[in-house]
Amino acid sequence: MLNFDFYNPTRIIFGKDRLDGIDKYVPADATVLITYGGGSAKRSGLIDKVKTVLGNRKVYEFGGIEPNPRYETLVKAVGIVRNEKIDFLLAVGGGSVIDGTKFIALASCYDGDSRDLLKYGLAPIPFDVIGKAVPFGTVLTLPATGSEMNNGAVISYGHGKYPVMSELVFPKFSILDPTLTFTLPKMQVANGVIDAFVHTTEQYLTYPVDGKVQDRMAEGILQTLIEISETTVAEPENYDARANHVWSATLALNGLIGAGVPQDWATHMIGHELTALFGIDHGQTLAIVLPALLEVRREQKRAKLLQYAERVWHIESGSEEEKIDLAIQKTREFFEGLGVKTYLSQYGVGADKIPVIVEQLKAHGMTALSETQDLTLDIIQKILERAM
Amino acid sequence: MLNFDFYNPTRIIFGKDRLDGIDKYVPADATVLITYGGGSAKRSGLIDKVKTVLGNRKVYEFGGIEPNPRYETLVKAVGIVRNEKIDFLLAVGGGSVIDGTKFIALASCYDGDSRDLLKYGLAPIPFDVIGKAVPFGTVLTLPATGSEMNNGAVISYGHGKYPVMSELVFPKFSILDPTLTFTLPKMQVANGVIDAFVHTTEQYLTYPVDGKVQDRMAEGILQTLIEISETTVAEPENYDARANHVWSATLALNGLIGAGVPQDWATHMIGHELTALFGIDHGQTLAIVLPALLEVRREQKRAKLLQYAERVWHIESGSEEEKIDLAIQKTREFFEGLGVKTYLSQYGVGADKIPVIVEQLKAHGMTALSETQDLTLDIIQKILERAM
Repeated sequence: MLNFDFYNPTRIIFGKDRLDGIDKYVPADATVLITYGGGSAKRSGLIDKVKTVLGNRKVYEFGGIEPNPRYETLVKAVGIVRNEKIDFLLAVGGGSVIDGTKFIALASCYDGDSRDLLKYGLAPIPFDVIGKAVPFGTVLTLPATGSEMNNGAVISYGHGKYPVMSELVFPKFSILDPTLTFTLPKMQVANGVIDAFVHTTEQYLTYPVDGKVQDRMAEGILQTLIEISETTVAEPENYDARANHVWSATLALNGLIGAGVPQDWATHMIGHELTALFGIDHGQTLAIVLPALLEVRREQKRAKLLQYAERVWHIESGSEEEKIDLAIQKTREFFEGLGVKTYLSQYGVGADKIPVIVEQLKAHGMTALSETQDLTLDIIQKILERAM
Repeated sequence: MLNFDFYNPTRIIFGKDRLDGIDKYVPADATVLITYGGGSAKRSGLIDKVKTVLGNRKVYEFGGIEPNPRYETLVKAVGIVRNEKIDFLLAVGGGSVIDGTKFIALASCYDGDSRDLLKYGLAPIPFDVIGKAVPFGTVLTLPATGSEMNNGAVISYGHGKYPVMSELVFPKFSILDPTLTFTLPKMQVANGVIDAFVHTTEQYLTYPVDGKVQDRMAEGILQTLIEISETTVAEPENYDARANHVWSATLALNGLIGAGVPQDWATHMIGHELTALFGIDHGQTLAIVLPALLEVRREQKRAKLLQYAERVWHIESGSEEEKIDLAIQKTREFFEGLGVKTYLSQYGVGADKIPVIVEQLKAHGMTALSETQDLTLDIIQKILERAM
């Protein structure tokens, strides 16, 4: 097992009818900015319910945070925070709204050009660069990214997607009421399952370090997602399936399963470029990249792929090669069974675009990805060819 | 899945050579009281190492916190905290030292008779009773109780063991360096495995609520403990086995696997009386009570016992009754394989003492235990008879 630090102070308030948690954990004298996305939270009446719970607190609203939240949008909210002396943010939405709110929380407390905060990648922003953030809570409406219980965000600027990490942006609390996700479009639910699944594989399909309990927990999340996937998509109001979906997605990226084990994240980094260049949904990009990456990286990941085949997919017979082949095939079929296509060409992106994608990765410094930092651009090219 | 709240802000600093975490997370101007137990931490030189890391901070020491820490001992430390204006506690030891330090942290901030704090049982002490505690960190030397990452303690007073729960006593940080546990006596290591195992079963062997991911994580901890148990006892310096032991024990009782599912705790409550009355080690009492309790409560726990048989012990064939019988038998053999006897008579306690034990449970209000509050004293009597 590798040395690790684990710290996660977010309070989870999980279950039916839990909005009262807002009143309990937002300071009674706070001036609050509610942040949200494209308007479904508004139309559904959720924003009004949240305002009712906030009672006599002074409340402002900032809607329009888009999927893959853009820097230019978020700086507008920073203006409101400063002008109206906002001292608590409340994100009502999915991962994009929460990610965007994390950036607003940081940028509001940063005196310089807040684009500076985009340049630290997966390393935490040093405390001497920024030492505080506006506190915030979340009301989750989409189970997928895990942003509701972690300290990371991904912000879009120009043609890039930039990770932003800081201990200052753990949500103070997150309300996880599965019933608030019942009205999601099926495709977003399917994407959410895939996002949580691939968050888990990024921290699991690497190389063994005898992190036995981490492996078991990762396998438990993968098995749970496989078990509930069909129901959570087909029966949106099946509470138990959705509850397991929501909690698995949160646990997949709250730091726990990655503590003390190697992590990859190459699938995400390549996927981010596909979203930035072609507007493909985040979950879809993961479904495209992961199977191709596993095929190309089977030697580096051999031991864990075999463990994955046996423990997650219960593949007991066959040679090592056959087990690995079948596990990758089952992974692809799992994504496709959710209605998500797994080849780039199926999204209208041809092989002629591969050099453009590779060039973008190079421009963003993604030249040595993976758990062993040996996933170079020539290998990524092979992965993209395989993903066509 | 049941509604739940989950909150755990303890920072875990895990691995080899991590004592530097103390310098990072104990305030530089703090006056520190180091608390420890019977002296092994002192003799091994660990206390001196800790003092070196504390550098120029003003440091006091309080040793002699006994296994099953006693109220009378702890109030002496409260005197030191008040007289010397201690503003940070540092527990160096196992669960007893950490539990004791939690009580010191609370009692030092309580104006009334601190025995009041013993009367809340498994319910958190209300914030209007006590609103703050002295902050503290821990350096763990015994993997067992999980106290290093939770907000509970068990304090002995008179002939009783009293749970104390408060959000105020999450450690600020815990250093989990498996090498610091290498010198433990084998029996303490074995007891530690059993303690972690039974913490997990108390949150798992109840009734199903479709908490799929919680079940998988609990099963993962149980499987890990089974896998590493022989090695962690026989080869104390096997780092990987011990690291998995340490981290599994922490995860078994940090609130995660119990979030959203029913919890039992009857084995612990009965075991506490056996320790208080006869001085039997905590881990040993659990090894005595659990198999007998599962036999007597097989109907109430049927569905989860079958799941336990299949997923944890890989029992695939036989009738339901046979599967359950075999799972209980394997549990008993697991404890005995660690060198821990599983019958009360083997500890010199005869059937004539059963009325005394039952009387003690009654005196401590333990008249309706279990996940369904229907474990009455007459059923406990049957469990004790079975445990003879």
